[in-house]
Order: sequence, then structure tokens, then C-alpha cells
Amino acid sequence: MNVTILGAGAMGMLFGGYLSRRNRVWLVDVDRARVDEINAEGVTVREADGARERFDPVAVTGSDGLGQMDIVVVFVKSMYTAAALEANKGIIGPDTYLMTLQNGAGHEKALRPFADDSHIIIGTTQHNASLLGPAETYHGGSGITSLGLLSGETGALEHIAGNLSSCGLDCRIAENIRREVWTKLFTNSSASALTAILQTPLEYLAQDPWAKELMERLCREAVAVANADCGGGFDEDEVVRAVTAVCNGAKNGYTSIYADIKSGRRTEVGSISGAVVEAAKRANVPAPCHETVAALIHALEDRGAPGT
Amino acid sequence: MNVTILGAGAMGMLFGGYLSRRNRVWLVDVDRARVDEINAEGVTVREADGARERFDPVAVTGSDGLGQMDIVVVFVKSMYTAAALEANKGIIGPDTYLMTLQNGAGHEKALRPFADDSHIIIGTTQHNASLLGPAETYHGGSGITSLGLLSGETGALEHIAGNLSSCGLDCRIAENIRREVWTKLFTNSSASALTAILQTPLEYLAQDPWAKELMERLCREAVAVANADCGGGFDEDEVVRAVTAVCNGAKNGYTSIYADIKSGRRTEVGSISGAVVEAAKRANVPAPCHETVAALIHALEDRGAPGT
Repeated sequence: MNVTILGAGAMGMLFGGYLSRRNRVWLVDVDRARVDEINAEGVTVREADGARERFDPVAVTGSDGLGQMDIVVVFVKSMYTAAALEANKGIIGPDTYLMTLQNGAGHEKALRPFADDSHIIIGTTQHNASLLGPAETYHGGSGITSLGLLSGETGALEHIAGNLSSCGLDCRIAENIRREVWTKLFTNSSASALTAILQTPLEYLAQDPWAKELMERLCREAVAVANADCGGGFDEDEVVRAVTAVCNGAKNGYTSIYADIKSGRRTEVGSISGAVVEAAKRANVPAPCHETVAALIHALEDRGAPGT
Repeated sequence: MNVTILGAGAMGMLFGGYLSRRNRVWLVDVDRARVDEINAEGVTVREADGARERFDPVAVTGSDGLGQMDIVVVFVKSMYTAAALEANKGIIGPDTYLMTLQNGAGHEKALRPFADDSHIIIGTTQHNASLLGPAETYHGGSGITSLGLLSGETGALEHIAGNLSSCGLDCRIAENIRREVWTKLFTNSSASALTAILQTPLEYLAQDPWAKELMERLCREAVAVANADCGGGFDEDEVVRAVTAVCNGAKNGYTSIYADIKSGRRTEVGSISGAVVEAAKRANVPAPCHETVAALIHALEDRGAPGT
């Protein structure tokens, strides 16, 4: 298949590298220095066990002239999704699948102007990666990648899921992909969002009674929204237990949204807390705690790094 | 009258000093060094125009043996009110008035175990003061002090209000003192509380659209609670305008609750956001935004100073 990855960050390089095992892959990134480095040195994936592998996808700053892709995978930060698609719409044809595995939810809103629902793949992945250098990514954790079409069809995905799996990205087609997205979102919209405001590691949310109360309140609110949104049949107590377990297991676990606020950067709050707020509005379910948390994180973004 | 002030902080020294013009005044404080300093040097009040005046109330670390007071004024930080009254209950007799002019609301809860409602005076004051030294206070702003009895009677207060006024503390008896308390609380429970979380000066709340939205949301929520609580007939838009004006007028205005969180100290959130939450529960009015804000501030208190 012809595959273009938008965004050559840690996850973009991981997927781009792995997918290049059986596909022609282009990595699009606005960072010219990174593009040059990748074309000169290849993409290096360092595995958690210390193994290193080099891949040679082609890096470009623009996709003009590449022709229509079979798949375009979006791995830019969520607030740049629409701009990245607009800049690369020349490679999106009527048969092109757009795929997002970005953190959070609600990404389909940015994808829908560029493809119909039977060509938009949303999903979640348990892989995680962090940058080691401009052309080197650390593959810290592996697991299942779940995919689903917005239209709800599943047959059309078998070819794609099989391709990803054969490249080393173990893939499943989800019956109810929105449910999978919500399952992952619960932790981000409760625990991770609070670490941005409180500027603490994740485990603080399992330790401090006030922080724990807030985390639970956010979980319960999100579950009510999720059940209205996707008929997931989530159980509040079960979700609270699962998120608490994530916090307890995250020894000195600092989230990326924590780091963004600490450094005065924009965050992905819009596709995390903001996605819950939007789903709540659509479903006409109250979500005042998420509204407050989302607005606080936006206000902290606007403020910039503390003490500056 | 025989008057004891609990807490020889900036406001306690100001009121203790002024009241000593026509009354016998004792200042009770747990800080032995401060008590010694006051007894050696008197209390110095420096006025905004630069004038200085020395007063000589008696400072003590405990009130044993002083006999029953005519008035006991509570000026400790709100979280220490109950402990301060318990430690000094020997000076509270059946005819003693307990008075609180502390910031926030809900202080009557801590006072009620020590006096009946016809001897509990709650109020607000426009005076403000800050510490210049252990026995010196800066009288930064003046204005009206409003008083009311919890029982709603007004006649019994005339003598006390007259005494305060004759000492230089211009005093009014309020028809609906709970309304006055709410009027002052709106700014604290919306704007001041947000400066604690966002770690910004007050004017940020009038400038940043997300912070402004939160401030307005808190104002509207508090107005609904206030109207249910005291029949104040507050208008949401009017309160939003008033609080916005306070924020706009506060050039580089850092609140005390901002400073407490910055320094890792306990705050008075319990009698600010917490008072709104409690009133909301009593009145059965929803206050989810205040609940979230209160819990966040408590969680920040528990965390301690940022970066430590």
C-alpha cells in the first residue's frame, strides 16, 4: 500500500518505520531539519529491550506530487489535524482511508471535511513512544491497536488490519470503536487532565483525598456521557477502579499534558476534556466538572509557563 | 467595654489598636515573641497617608483569669476559629458578644457552640491591613464595617456599633447582614479562588477569555445559591459586572489565597469556596463549579508549594 504519515513525531516515526516493512511510506513533517535527518540517517526505532532497527521511509515537508494514497495516518498533535489535512489534501482521493490513532476523542470532526464516514478510521493504540532524537524514537510500550470505521462497517478494514499486523502492529477490528476510544479517554479526561492543573505526577491522584475525589467525579461524569454517546454500558465504579489502578501503577508518572502546561505549551485538552464536553452537549448530559477543568487548562495555556 | 481580640495579625492589631481608644482591649495570640513585642513597644498603626499612631492594648498568649468579656472579636485565620474559641472559652459568658469580621462566610458554624444567635455578630469590613512587623500594621484601606446579629435583632447592636464608630471604625447595622456577607463573598469565591488555581494576578480574570468565562460561571452559580440562602435578590449580570470591575481595578493585584498556594500554606478556601458549597447543599441548589474549584484548591494545599 501507499501510506503517508502526517507528523514525524515519536509515534509517527514508530508507525512509519514499522509500516515501511511491507508498504511504501512517506513521512510528512513541517520540520525541515528533521526531514533531512530522516532522509540521511533513516528512522531508528529503539525497543524497550535495547534492540535497535533502522527503517527507510521517505520524509518530505510537503506531499505535492505523491499521488493519491491508500492510507493517510494522522499523527500530528490534535490541534494541528485540520491544518495538516488541508495542506496535504492532494494525496486524499475518493478511495483513500484517513486514519487517526491520536490521543483523546472527537478527531473525526477534523477528518470529516476530507473523507466520507466509510473512509475514516478511528482507533486507539497501546503502543507508546517518545523521541530520542530528530530521527530516533523509543518504543516504550506495545499492545493492541484497535480500529473501526466511522460508518460502522467492518469488512473493509480486514485488509488494512491484516497489513498492520503483518508489519508488527498487532491489530484488531473493534465492533464498537467509539467504546474503545472512550475506554482510553476516561484516564486522560480525569487523571491526566487533573495533573495539568495540579502539576503533580499521576500517582498523586490516587493518594490525595481531594484529588481522588475530583478524579472520581470526572470519571463518573464521563461515564454518563459515554453511555449516552456510544451505548457502551460502562459501569462507573469499574471505570473508577481502572483509572485508580493506572494512577497507582504510574510511579513518578508525569503526563504529557502536565509537561505541556509546565513548559507553557499548548496542550491536547481540546480532544481530551473538550471531547467530553462536546459529547455531553450532543447527548444533552451535564458535564460541569469537565467544563470547569477544560476552561482551567485553556486559561493555564494562555497564561504560559508558571513564574514567567 | 472589655474587648478581647483573638489573633494579633494585621487586622487584629488594627482593630485592637483603634478599639483601645475607648475600651480595655486584650490581644490574644499564640506567638509569644509577638506578644512580648506588643507589650514592650505597643501596637503601631501606619496609615495610608504615612501617619503613625501607637496604641497600648495588652497582649497575652492566653486569656485565663481575664474574666468575661463584653465582646470577643475573632480575627484568626478561619481554619483556626474553633480552636481559638475553645482555648479562650473562659472569657465567654452568657452576656458576651462574639463577633467575626473574617473573610468569607460560614464562620457562624464555628461560633455557635460558644454563644446563642442573639450574641453572635457577623459582619464585613472594608478596612484592610497588612503586617509591617510583629507589632506594626499598615492600614491600607478604610471604609464601612457592617454588622448584624445572627438572630436578626438590630436594637442590641446600637451600643456596639456606636462604640466602634466612636473609635474610628465607621460602623453600620445591616438589615440583612447575610446579604452583605454574600456581596463580599462573590469576589472571593469567583475571582480570588481562581487566582489560587491559575496562579495569576486578579486582572488576568478580566483579560483571558477562558478565565473570564470561569469567573462568570462561578459568579452566576454563587448568585443562585445566595438568592436561595438569604433572599438577597441579587442580579447575576450585576454581580458579574461588579466582580469584573474589581479585577480590572486590581493592577498587579495578587490575592492572599494566591500567595498561600504559591508558598505551600493552608488557605481560607473552606470559608470562601467551601462556604458557597455548604450553602448550596443547605439550599439544595447545584454548585458543581464551586465544588470542583474548592476540591482543586484543597488538593493544591496538600501538594505544597510548586516545584518542591
